Amino acid sequence: MPEKVLVHSRFPRTMLKRFGERFELMDAAGKPAGELFAAEELASVRAMITAGGRPLGAAAMDLFPSLGAIICYGTGYDGIDLEAARKRKIVVGHSPGANASSVADIAITLMLAAIRRLVVADNYVRSGDWAAAKPSLMMRPQAGMRGRRVGVYGMGEIGRKIAARVAAFDTEVGYFSRSRPDVPYQYFPSLEALADWCSILMIAVRAGADTHHAVDADIFRRLGTDGHVINVARGSVVDEAALAAALADRTIAGAGLDVHEQEPRAPDALTALPNVVLTPHIGGHTLESHTAMQDCVIANLEAFFAGQALPFAVKTG
Amino acid sequence: MPEKVLVHSRFPRTMLKRFGERFELMDAAGKPAGELFAAEELASVRAMITAGGRPLGAAAMDLFPSLGAIICYGTGYDGIDLEAARKRKIVVGHSPGANASSVADIAITLMLAAIRRLVVADNYVRSGDWAAAKPSLMMRPQAGMRGRRVGVYGMGEIGRKIAARVAAFDTEVGYFSRSRPDVPYQYFPSLEALADWCSILMIAVRAGADTHHAVDADIFRRLGTDGHVINVARGSVVDEAALAAALADRTIAGAGLDVHEQEPRAPDALTALPNVVLTPHIGGHTLESHTAMQDCVIANLEAFFAGQALPFAVKTG
Repeated sequence: MPEKVLVHSRFPRTMLKRFGERFELMDAAGKPAGELFAAEELASVRAMITAGGRPLGAAAMDLFPSLGAIICYGTGYDGIDLEAARKRKIVVGHSPGANASSVADIAITLMLAAIRRLVVADNYVRSGDWAAAKPSLMMRPQAGMRGRRVGVYGMGEIGRKIAARVAAFDTEVGYFSRSRPDVPYQYFPSLEALADWCSILMIAVRAGADTHHAVDADIFRRLGTDGHVINVARGSVVDEAALAAALADRTIAGAGLDVHEQEPRAPDALTALPNVVLTPHIGGHTLESHTAMQDCVIANLEAFFAGQALPFAVKTG
Repeated sequence: MPEKVLVHSRFPRTMLKRFGERFELMDAAGKPAGELFAAEELASVRAMITAGGRPLGAAAMDLFPSLGAIICYGTGYDGIDLEAARKRKIVVGHSPGANASSVADIAITLMLAAIRRLVVADNYVRSGDWAAAKPSLMMRPQAGMRGRRVGVYGMGEIGRKIAARVAAFDTEVGYFSRSRPDVPYQYFPSLEALADWCSILMIAVRAGADTHHAVDADIFRRLGTDGHVINVARGSVVDEAALAAALADRTIAGAGLDVHEQEPRAPDALTALPNVVLTPHIGGHTLESHTAMQDCVIANLEAFFAGQALPFAVKTG
């Protein structure tokens, strides 16, 4: 008989199909599991799949007295209370690096779209304004990529892939990161020093209490009037209200955000602006990264039910 | 006294300011010079600045009996009747490579925007559809860049810069070009062979009679249903009506166009489609490429008026 696995977050049905072939899924689809399933059903759950950014604390874990494994779909696990998991001897797994190329690609997509004002440009052609020779601020030449200083905040797998791509655009690349991996880019000892040096800031840092609102009004001032901020990490890293203000008063020139403080919402203060590009957290949203992330979930679940260590484990203590 | 220079095409005033400091400009701004200026004024014109894509044939040249130099702003010179210029001993100059980085950048911008459906994604967030959890085909994962075969059509300076950028995205790069420069990419003996091999076709070929509609319905079929076409060369290289049909019936998946057959117009058949990204010929439209192109124009004009060979000359015979 297939093992039962609770699906904690809301995932597309097509995505769950492959898991459903191997496990018996109890799909809470983002709703409170305690309201959907009987207590004895919850008591039989030994493993769950969740989105790493979705809050999962001690109280939620206690609904499942047999829970032994929390498997995050994706790289992040910032929603999981790791201390609570450790105390309950619950192992935590994720999909490290499986979506790194796709997330790095969306970072470059947003960077180029912001620098070259792609959404405004597409609308200028599509609306007929170009054919009508309507004046547009967009048609004023602006600084492009060549010779730009690009700062990468966070030099994990995604940060390294972003840096490798950015370096191909005739730019200089610098970085700030907790660790100092062996990479051929200029290291800066703080985010402030990086922001003083660069004009484009690529945020690829792991989210947590220490990075909450790390990119704030002070950082925007340091980036300067040709500054751009690109965030593909987590919405919590950027002070979104301060960003909207900095974009509106042109403290910086532009921004590109795949992640948002209150997903799935972007505030009106941002959506009203022409100098920001917004995507609905689709960084890892490609066929190849979904396949790779699913591979990690299945490998983690199969190892867990076989009594083995998770091949893609998060350190909980 | 500064030398007189006729401005044949329409250029932004800010762009002409720098030329106006060195030369006495007669700005026809894209209108027929014969209607704007007296015959004796035209007779005194020895040099003109024009956009390389704008038609300039024997009859137009004959309006200027003293004309000795046609200086194209930008890399292209496909609008100039070179044979007519040669017969009249008119030298032709351009700005080779000055905008290559900027044009290569817009090619990558369009490629990523098409692959990741950026304009649709931005609208999904901005409209509130994401917050309302409205279904969207966009949210279905599609193939990203990783492992893609990307074909570059034309391996001049822009083609090489496109290839170098594309290679950073975990892709395989191939090319077809008249010449076979020393580049580390797989060579294909024809455009058809390249299209059979790749799924993303980047068009960076020099426009001319031999490349007119070179990318047509047959090429789209060869690219296949996950195919994408990106054009930053000239609109004439692509059969635009066939492209609109191929996008509408999903013979290919998407396209990104910075250049168009009938600029400044994009046909309704294209502007109605969600799977194409359109920009208003802004490839070379950055401060640094404008500065570099202006440098070439000034160097060409100063050399011409000093009786020297053009430093950035087009071979006319």
